[in-house]
Amino acid sequence: MAYTMMQTPRGTKDFLPRDAERKRWVEGVILDLFRRWGYREIITPTMEFCDAVSVGDETGLARNLYRFFEREGDLLALRPDVTTPVARVVATRLRDKPKPIRLCYRANVFRYAEPQAGRRREFYQAGVELVGSNTYLADAEVVALTVEALRAVGLKDFRVDIGQVDYYHGILQHPGLSPEERRSLRLALLKRDYVALEELLTGCSLPKEDRELLRQLPELRGGQGILREAMDRATNPISRSAIKNLTAIYEILEAYDLADWIQVDLGMIKDIEYYTGMVLEAYTADMGFTIGTGGRYDNLIDHFGYNCPATGFALGIERIMLALSRQQGWLPTANRRVLCQEVAKRPELSWQIARHLREQGCIVELDVGDRSEAETEEYALASGFTWIVCPLSSKQVRVWNPEAGWRKMVLAELVAVLEGEGPSE
Amino acid sequence: MAYTMMQTPRGTKDFLPRDAERKRWVEGVILDLFRRWGYREIITPTMEFCDAVSVGDETGLARNLYRFFEREGDLLALRPDVTTPVARVVATRLRDKPKPIRLCYRANVFRYAEPQAGRRREFYQAGVELVGSNTYLADAEVVALTVEALRAVGLKDFRVDIGQVDYYHGILQHPGLSPEERRSLRLALLKRDYVALEELLTGCSLPKEDRELLRQLPELRGGQGILREAMDRATNPISRSAIKNLTAIYEILEAYDLADWIQVDLGMIKDIEYYTGMVLEAYTADMGFTIGTGGRYDNLIDHFGYNCPATGFALGIERIMLALSRQQGWLPTANRRVLCQEVAKRPELSWQIARHLREQGCIVELDVGDRSEAETEEYALASGFTWIVCPLSSKQVRVWNPEAGWRKMVLAELVAVLEGEGPSE
Repeated sequence: MAYTMMQTPRGTKDFLPRDAERKRWVEGVILDLFRRWGYREIITPTMEFCDAVSVGDETGLARNLYRFFEREGDLLALRPDVTTPVARVVATRLRDKPKPIRLCYRANVFRYAEPQAGRRREFYQAGVELVGSNTYLADAEVVALTVEALRAVGLKDFRVDIGQVDYYHGILQHPGLSPEERRSLRLALLKRDYVALEELLTGCSLPKEDRELLRQLPELRGGQGILREAMDRATNPISRSAIKNLTAIYEILEAYDLADWIQVDLGMIKDIEYYTGMVLEAYTADMGFTIGTGGRYDNLIDHFGYNCPATGFALGIERIMLALSRQQGWLPTANRRVLCQEVAKRPELSWQIARHLREQGCIVELDVGDRSEAETEEYALASGFTWIVCPLSSKQVRVWNPEAGWRKMVLAELVAVLEGEGPSE
Repeated sequence: MAYTMMQTPRGTKDFLPRDAERKRWVEGVILDLFRRWGYREIITPTMEFCDAVSVGDETGLARNLYRFFEREGDLLALRPDVTTPVARVVATRLRDKPKPIRLCYRANVFRYAEPQAGRRREFYQAGVELVGSNTYLADAEVVALTVEALRAVGLKDFRVDIGQVDYYHGILQHPGLSPEERRSLRLALLKRDYVALEELLTGCSLPKEDRELLRQLPELRGGQGILREAMDRATNPISRSAIKNLTAIYEILEAYDLADWIQVDLGMIKDIEYYTGMVLEAYTADMGFTIGTGGRYDNLIDHFGYNCPATGFALGIERIMLALSRQQGWLPTANRRVLCQEVAKRPELSWQIARHLREQGCIVELDVGDRSEAETEEYALASGFTWIVCPLSSKQVRVWNPEAGWRKMVLAELVAVLEGEGPSE
């Protein structure tokens, strides 16, 4: 049979029940946290007009878009992120609401990428946007919530790096640089292409201390001391103002007792260009990719005709799942799974018993097969049922479980035994 | 500004927070019910190879597919339903598992349609597939679960119609008909195009009683009596066997005490062609479209190389939301929303109080703005906060609510007052 009948498209996957349940659990924990912090969920379409998701993107994402023509002739794209669609919604439908507005989402996004471990083309994010506030407190909240979300799902060995794009923007604003030089320098820093960086620095008109600072940008990484060093070495007011902002954010995070999770990284350059201030990336120690990303984007919403500051982040759900699997595995879930028999012969009784046990929180499957007792036991064992229940009357049942085999019971007794086994969540 | 910057593509929409919360509530109630019936969630990709979602579709869905070429050259499609992808997964990855397998999903699907009320191009479904059982008990379970799901979300005025495609297939199998005549007759019945039907019947070689039966098919609709009438009028063993099957299903549903919600409809012809036995459609009284659809599809999985019977259904989430809004509105949710101040001046205290109240189930927003007291009150009123909390020490707070204005309180006292307001769910 052709692979197009047997496989999913490149970079996509099926989640079988165990993984689907884990995914829903991670999403549920994170979204519930967002809700308690005052963020309300928003759902935007899977596809957008291509124009709307290409704004503020000079170098990058557009090349990775899934694009196609709508029947009516407009060019559409599958959303490559949710921040841009949320910016559209804020500009068109929420501009008159009191600010700040706290919005969150869980959604799949689509980007062409070479499929490899951790690099999918359809992947799942949960994130927040804190819209309408330009304060350092808003940025600190976003960083704090990143930490809290990763702690809430049980991750232990992670770190959130924070940077500030204006620190290197301040250097690149030097009047001696051409726009082309600025772009090339930014790209070399983004790609950590030190050969290209060296060539560009050698030929350009930046003062010596700025060239040295750009070279050493990736080393400006660590605790609070880095902020002092960066301030000392800043040569222009934009860079100094960036450090002042980042210091204020860092101090709030210290007051929140979160400094252990935070690292300053002034070499953080983002591949998405809409960031304008504090930026963040979350990592786990043992993986070579980010599990979360975000920052301030004060100009993005303006592309849709409404000038409004905002900050936010997105977490990669599958990467968090992978990190959880590697770090400590998943908690086993206690399942009270019951197979209820005699549906054909005594449908009223089976139905009543099944309903009753479901109301008690059990998972109850009606046995729709036509099997012998031995076959049923085999099926129950293979499928992980803890109980088979065969109704005899509205009060009496025959029950089987793997340890004790078959025996008669009063229904109330069975309910009590099942309750003793704890919840099925 | 161009409409491609301001709008979503035709037939798609944004869910603002109120609607997003309602959508999640409906999905949550339904998926929790599915879980307790033993169905486990599965998640498949948004896009599939076009071949894989075009199987078993001779007349219809393919024309409505969103199709585009993947970068590597294969033709992809956004999934038009979830049943076909689940069939692919069963055939490729679950064929060796004990049967039956109960799977469920919540997912968006995509079909070109003229956008009008209730006809979206991206829409949301929740459904189940009961795979690996060919018994009438399996079909009865699927119908019963449809009823229970619609009751669980609080719908009152609905009905589930059940039919059997073999009843009219039996008639169309008459050896006097050409394949072309069969197809045309089926299409006329599907579209309820009685002019075309009359023309086809006049010219064809069916016996008089079969022609009469096809004409009156839409009238074979009602309670159990219809099953007897349909059996009396059946002229061939396939049709008789169909009624025997549907009668067995009906009797089980009666035993489950669900007959009030069920209507037999032998004129039900489905636009999707993979159905092979019992079919179902759920309606509300006051809307001109189905809110759920499903049936038995014993040949679909075979298209992926694994012969395996199955039955299932899908519910339209947005249509259920619409029906709920029309029938009885939504229950108001009690929200304990708290705005926590002084984040800049006393970040440790604000953080501790916010954390404490969130653990109590409150929604707590940190005030990241730089506002006067009057402005803050105005913002709180406009945004629906029930409390403003201003920490004075780790034990004392100043609080405001719309009724009582500002006053001092011990923190424990505030917690008790908030608890008295009930849960925020």
